[in-house]
Amino acid sequence: MQYHDNGVSGVKIAYIGGGSRGWAWTLMKDLALAENFEGEVALYDIDYKAAQDNEIIGNKIREDFPEASQWSYKAVKTLKEALTDANFVVVSILPGTFKEMGSDVHTPEKYGIYQPVGDTVGPGGIIRALRTIPMFEEIGNAVREYCPNAWVINYTNPMTVCTRTLYRVFPEIKMFGCCHEVFETLKLLCKSLDQIGGIPGVKRNQIKANVTGVNHFTWITEAKYGNIDLLPLYREYANKRRAEGEKPPENDGNWMNRAFQTHELVKFDLFDRYGVIAAAGDRHLAEFCPKSWYTSSPEQVAEYGFGLTPIQWRLKDLDERLQKSRDLIEGKEKFKLDQSGEEGVLQMKAILGLGDMVTNVNIPNQGQIPNLPLGAVVETNAVFSADSVKPVCAGDLPETLYGLIAPIVAEQELVVEAGLTRDLELAFKAFMADPHVQTLSLQDARALFDEMVENTKEYLGEYFN
Amino acid sequence: MQYHDNGVSGVKIAYIGGGSRGWAWTLMKDLALAENFEGEVALYDIDYKAAQDNEIIGNKIREDFPEASQWSYKAVKTLKEALTDANFVVVSILPGTFKEMGSDVHTPEKYGIYQPVGDTVGPGGIIRALRTIPMFEEIGNAVREYCPNAWVINYTNPMTVCTRTLYRVFPEIKMFGCCHEVFETLKLLCKSLDQIGGIPGVKRNQIKANVTGVNHFTWITEAKYGNIDLLPLYREYANKRRAEGEKPPENDGNWMNRAFQTHELVKFDLFDRYGVIAAAGDRHLAEFCPKSWYTSSPEQVAEYGFGLTPIQWRLKDLDERLQKSRDLIEGKEKFKLDQSGEEGVLQMKAILGLGDMVTNVNIPNQGQIPNLPLGAVVETNAVFSADSVKPVCAGDLPETLYGLIAPIVAEQELVVEAGLTRDLELAFKAFMADPHVQTLSLQDARALFDEMVENTKEYLGEYFN
Amino acid sequence: MQYHDNGVSGVKIAYIGGGSRGWAWTLMKDLALAENFEGEVALYDIDYKAAQDNEIIGNKIREDFPEASQWSYKAVKTLKEALTDANFVVVSILPGTFKEMGSDVHTPEKYGIYQPVGDTVGPGGIIRALRTIPMFEEIGNAVREYCPNAWVINYTNPMTVCTRTLYRVFPEIKMFGCCHEVFETLKLLCKSLDQIGGIPGVKRNQIKANVTGVNHFTWITEAKYGNIDLLPLYREYANKRRAEGEKPPENDGNWMNRAFQTHELVKFDLFDRYGVIAAAGDRHLAEFCPKSWYTSSPEQVAEYGFGLTPIQWRLKDLDERLQKSRDLIEGKEKFKLDQSGEEGVLQMKAILGLGDMVTNVNIPNQGQIPNLPLGAVVETNAVFSADSVKPVCAGDLPETLYGLIAPIVAEQELVVEAGLTRDLELAFKAFMADPHVQTLSLQDARALFDEMVENTKEYLGEYFN
Amino acid sequence: MQYHDNGVSGVKIAYIGGGSRGWAWTLMKDLALAENFEGEVALYDIDYKAAQDNEIIGNKIREDFPEASQWSYKAVKTLKEALTDANFVVVSILPGTFKEMGSDVHTPEKYGIYQPVGDTVGPGGIIRALRTIPMFEEIGNAVREYCPNAWVINYTNPMTVCTRTLYRVFPEIKMFGCCHEVFETLKLLCKSLDQIGGIPGVKRNQIKANVTGVNHFTWITEAKYGNIDLLPLYREYANKRRAEGEKPPENDGNWMNRAFQTHELVKFDLFDRYGVIAAAGDRHLAEFCPKSWYTSSPEQVAEYGFGLTPIQWRLKDLDERLQKSRDLIEGKEKFKLDQSGEEGVLQMKAILGLGDMVTNVNIPNQGQIPNLPLGAVVETNAVFSADSVKPVCAGDLPETLYGLIAPIVAEQELVVEAGLTRDLELAFKAFMADPHVQTLSLQDARALFDEMVENTKEYLGEYFN
Repeated sequence: MQYHDNGVSGVKIAYIGGGSRGWAWTLMKDLALAENFEGEVALYDIDYKAAQDNEIIGNKIREDFPEASQWSYKAVKTLKEALTDANFVVVSILPGTFKEMGSDVHTPEKYGIYQPVGDTVGPGGIIRALRTIPMFEEIGNAVREYCPNAWVINYTNPMTVCTRTLYRVFPEIKMFGCCHEVFETLKLLCKSLDQIGGIPGVKRNQIKANVTGVNHFTWITEAKYGNIDLLPLYREYANKRRAEGEKPPENDGNWMNRAFQTHELVKFDLFDRYGVIAAAGDRHLAEFCPKSWYTSSPEQVAEYGFGLTPIQWRLKDLDERLQKSRDLIEGKEKFKLDQSGEEGVLQMKAILGLGDMVTNVNIPNQGQIPNLPLGAVVETNAVFSADSVKPVCAGDLPETLYGLIAPIVAEQELVVEAGLTRDLELAFKAFMADPHVQTLSLQDARALFDEMVENTKEYLGEYFN
Repeated sequence: MQYHDNGVSGVKIAYIGGGSRGWAWTLMKDLALAENFEGEVALYDIDYKAAQDNEIIGNKIREDFPEASQWSYKAVKTLKEALTDANFVVVSILPGTFKEMGSDVHTPEKYGIYQPVGDTVGPGGIIRALRTIPMFEEIGNAVREYCPNAWVINYTNPMTVCTRTLYRVFPEIKMFGCCHEVFETLKLLCKSLDQIGGIPGVKRNQIKANVTGVNHFTWITEAKYGNIDLLPLYREYANKRRAEGEKPPENDGNWMNRAFQTHELVKFDLFDRYGVIAAAGDRHLAEFCPKSWYTSSPEQVAEYGFGLTPIQWRLKDLDERLQKSRDLIEGKEKFKLDQSGEEGVLQMKAILGLGDMVTNVNIPNQGQIPNLPLGAVVETNAVFSADSVKPVCAGDLPETLYGLIAPIVAEQELVVEAGLTRDLELAFKAFMADPHVQTLSLQDARALFDEMVENTKEYLGEYFN
Repeated sequence: MQYHDNGVSGVKIAYIGGGSRGWAWTLMKDLALAENFEGEVALYDIDYKAAQDNEIIGNKIREDFPEASQWSYKAVKTLKEALTDANFVVVSILPGTFKEMGSDVHTPEKYGIYQPVGDTVGPGGIIRALRTIPMFEEIGNAVREYCPNAWVINYTNPMTVCTRTLYRVFPEIKMFGCCHEVFETLKLLCKSLDQIGGIPGVKRNQIKANVTGVNHFTWITEAKYGNIDLLPLYREYANKRRAEGEKPPENDGNWMNRAFQTHELVKFDLFDRYGVIAAAGDRHLAEFCPKSWYTSSPEQVAEYGFGLTPIQWRLKDLDERLQKSRDLIEGKEKFKLDQSGEEGVLQMKAILGLGDMVTNVNIPNQGQIPNLPLGAVVETNAVFSADSVKPVCAGDLPETLYGLIAPIVAEQELVVEAGLTRDLELAFKAFMADPHVQTLSLQDARALFDEMVENTKEYLGEYFN
Repeated sequence: MQYHDNGVSGVKIAYIGGGSRGWAWTLMKDLALAENFEGEVALYDIDYKAAQDNEIIGNKIREDFPEASQWSYKAVKTLKEALTDANFVVVSILPGTFKEMGSDVHTPEKYGIYQPVGDTVGPGGIIRALRTIPMFEEIGNAVREYCPNAWVINYTNPMTVCTRTLYRVFPEIKMFGCCHEVFETLKLLCKSLDQIGGIPGVKRNQIKANVTGVNHFTWITEAKYGNIDLLPLYREYANKRRAEGEKPPENDGNWMNRAFQTHELVKFDLFDRYGVIAAAGDRHLAEFCPKSWYTSSPEQVAEYGFGLTPIQWRLKDLDERLQKSRDLIEGKEKFKLDQSGEEGVLQMKAILGLGDMVTNVNIPNQGQIPNLPLGAVVETNAVFSADSVKPVCAGDLPETLYGLIAPIVAEQELVVEAGLTRDLELAFKAFMADPHVQTLSLQDARALFDEMVENTKEYLGEYFN
């Protein structure tokens, strides 16, 4: 790595899951647009062919945009090759296939548990965690061996579990997890400022918010623009949208189109309940709340204006992205270079000492939320600075929210312990600790757990040794 | 107070709620049977006539049993008179009348919330707490003024809230709360020892158990008799009873008879879930668990073999006790002096330095359960010794249970804050934090709260100032 | 207050101690140089005449520099007048006169305790704290009454005690304490970077450091410039300076000139001991260390190259400043507008939402140093943002330092408690808890305490009621 | 092990350090006197011959006292043989020889550090800890392998370090450390009760005291006999003894006779300072206090009426004990069976479920002292019950004492870490953290450390690998 004129070249990024047809492309574009920041990206993927495709696609950017920052891409066959000499490690993997995701999301429906996403908590999130933890254990061990001083950035879900696993395996790791869910809520605050406060044009990073909670169940307890308190504006904004008859779009006959739409009705209801702002997508938030509030039936889900993500949607989406990959390789399509809004590249630059930034991350609790256990992974703001990511004290969780969040933290700590010890019996205890599973009898909980394990056992081999 | 020969005379006990036709009589008998322990009892009650009745009844014991320990009883008209010079203060009051209790228990049924008792948590427990807190605030202030060095023993529910209120009002108070629910579970362990282990005749206080949790949701995480681990025996015992078809008794057509019967099926189910022993009556335990487990309908309640306590039962029971009071006064009936099994008198003697004892009490957390907040009231063992009640370290709550208990602790802390500040809006937030209330929509929760407050507003006057 | 074009006008600052002939002038110049930031300053001082002088001096700046930011100054007679409508409150007062300071610093010398400053800890710091606490209690109460939403910035010593007092008196106060001692250490790191690393011209705020500890005994545990670790450079720098014979300057016969000189020899010795950087002036640091290290005699003080501050120096210095005040009023002298290096104005702008900043402040521990007690005032970095100053997590104090810092924290907590309760006996307990006082027998400690109290009793009247 | 009639036979005790000519004999006598408690003792010692001697001596008791409880003794050659099937493990070893102890105690004298004992903290205690930790690591590993369910009782110093090491090595160990120093202080309270209160004949275990702190720097913060508060009596008692001219005995020309005498003058001075009772021998207490209070010179030591323990005394004492051993083996001398006052056997019986007891022990902090770190070893009361030793909550350390104790806890935690990692550099950091070492310059501290390590390197081999 060489420093010069406010910039750095010779940076090496290892991308684990480098065959991705989503995040990887986003990163490629952001890197091309990053000023005074150049280097190489090693693409590692268990699907080596996919990594090779991305090597071609990535290197095409350099050719197509000679004026952009210059990054070279190379598919590699081993973690060792990827990690050696890396300055940063990006992890964005899919733990299992759509078959396993299908089981995660849909098996619980038999027992009346409807999960809009199923990748974080709830039965789906827990089973997904079980297959993810051994993968992150391997990654953690490899980082310790090959690049212990590199900074690791995770984008994989379940975020909390992945982050905790890396710190359990390699406590000295420099690592944080990123999620853009909070950003969307900040944008809602910008809309409130515009529509209620009459101040248009404010960007999300001009909003100063205190972020607290856990990933996908994150909260904003204070939000200011200059000296304007945004919570009263948000209240009016929410009331206005509801008064205007905010509701789910007309059913156009194609449920697939509903998959990712949300209408913030969950967010608005939670605001009424707690007086602070839930800062994640409605589809995630609903999974942390009592089932009776938003997901007691598909009809109630519809009523709250968000969709469940059917696996068929994901399959169709993948087909489209595979086609796009082919088009990019063959040059039928070219990237349009625009900022993604993701912060990964800004964070890397801040860590290299090129300018501080404050944003929200997932990282073990070291005091930032005093009434949650030390060590558990939480999401708050942090200061990114030279070789340093330090959380900002968010204060105690509001007492009114504590009862919703503390059990989730305990549940996820149990899941990680169960995963690291490959202990299915302990995993079942974690499963039973989930509020949605707690709507079932012990017998049904056991049957559901067993079926979900059976469905995904291809990825749970180590638990049966 | 005079010490002599291993004993003490001249003890003064203030009994707040001294018109009681239950606990007061129990105490009278226990005092009569307490060796080397004599003095006087000041009976204070807002129903002065009831206190006067008990004065007569109490003094009759002295006459009827001249060989028993000699205690004199006197009804007094003011807290000041009762407390001045008191060595001990017993608090056992009914916060409100059966009308209010009726609202506590039955109003939530409209919304599908079935509470077997309704005096601890859940909508009933919270509303009851709201009317209780100002009363305990008054008691705490009076103790500080008139007898700051006296030891206060509370028997009133909600136990946790009452105890916390006294410590909030007068932090230096010497006070603990007693509940006999754990004893019954220890007796079950004696039965296990007899029926499975083949060791009959063991008494409950020979069982050595680690008690932890909060009142009415208390747990035994270790239990030994000599070097025999009682948990495996309890497992066999539970399985045997279920194998033998343990179930609710035949319906004899009179639901009232079912009110206090329990068949331990909740306890056994919780043992299957958590591997540690729930140590309270099933009727209380069920109120802390997800509604879907045991109380989703009257039918499910019946299936688990416990009853809901209808207010009619309480009314009938009161009639009987009033009659008994008259009979005692008129000498138509006499007490039979037998040990109640309650420990209040033993505790007093230990506090006077007449012999240590270890038993479970409710007291603020000062480290005995490190993963619950300091200050919150918890139930664990404590050592009773000369002028001292010190909790025994129970260790962290099991991680698997944490998610059920931590929210309850937060909820009850909120209730106390709401009560002390007479803040109905905060009280509603506490209400919404209750797991059973969380089965409702925000609108229904509000409607239920408002109705319950309206029903009991006679006792909530200060909240409307 | 009006926002416009990245700036704010109509700001009201209340300056308590506004007759100051040091800090007040610094602030005046910084305000004049602050872009897009204008308003008025209310000067309150128990010496009203001094405040009036500063009113004249301050308003002259506006006349003399019409192109500078425009601030008007006004002496006021009451705290109420000063605080009403204030957006910011600056507190910089002298608790007592030089007579009391003389006793603080010099009385302990009779017992072999040499205090270079005597305003923070040690016998002098504690007695000073006792007279300061009632003053800050009054200020805290006034802020709550007249401007509860204003931000309060304290510059008065003992910083920790003043800050803690304000938060004890008014827990919801928005307040932090500022001290520039860390800045000088950052400049030393710049020198290391220049002289050892060969990188000249780096400014102190380009150094990224993790600050931790308590005021005047603050530590830098990590320091980076870009990806350069500054600790090894600092080690070489220290060794080089010592190798070159760093020592106190030749005695020019005038001890007064030595008063504020330091040669960093204390800092270098502490670095050898702990491997992390002590980040305050040597004169302050020495007061927190075992007496035998640096202050066992005036000779040892000289050997370590720092001076004790004699009160005569302060008297002479005051004379000079009084003369300067007259000259400024009469126009014989004019301010030269240059940046002071103080950050107060930048902090105010950040708090108004005009741009975030990260710097070190004194504020109650809310998790930023998990192994110190919550609530105790500590010094770490904090993020300044719109209406928000939130500490950055500094992590646990290094275990090796813990034993030096934890007792100081306990001592200062005791001092505050003693001050707020006006309890001289408790104050003596705090006094005895001081490591320097602990070099004395109980009898000598008592005699010293009594003498120091007697000497300063004019300011301790409330302790004798 | 067989239970019968309130008793147990077939108990196996492993005695590590079983060649001891002190503690081992004490245990033998206590076992012979223990009713309804019989079994065998395996004697393991690195000096196998000494263990064989004790085998003979122990078995003679059985022959000589056929009516006593019957215990058989057997010297064994390996830890494995000793520990296999053990129910209890007693550890009482001498880490090194008198040569090493001589260096521990006397080398620091060159630098003006006078240690009365030198086995706990201070330079001597730390160096002793370094050679002890690897031994206890071996013991901990062996317990895990051969008798993980046995209860381990340690009597070896440094007690805190030994206990912590066992729990670090084998966290699930059932283990506590016993020390009789508190007992002597309880006896002083009995004397106060007699001489001041006029109540003779009270036994130490009738005094109810709250014990807190760390081993050898233990404190009694509350003490009661019945409802009599003993602190005022103790104050009068201390004043009376000083008024009567309590002072060290006339020098009879033989310093050796002074070695273990104490006159409580340290204890009385500490009571004046803190208002709570220091509960260990003066010789130990002095090592935790600022050097200037009691040990700044041999003269000051004499003035406070306690002695330094010269190694010559220990050598002479050993000679006497070796002779006694020979006499016992040859039958020239016989034991007199009398209660030692030690509680080891009572504790074992309580653990077997034969009756609860409350006494003070050393055990990791699990909440019993909330303002000390969890995990650090502290000394408080504990309840001994069936298969259970649970600490009693002692509450926060008094704030006035905190500054003396917290650094010691940090120092000993560092020592254990240094020992377990065999890290001499970290050990030096711990050494520098000691208050007595902190009276030295860095250079002197280093020189002393190096010399003490050199002197004892025969036992520090693993630190040089």
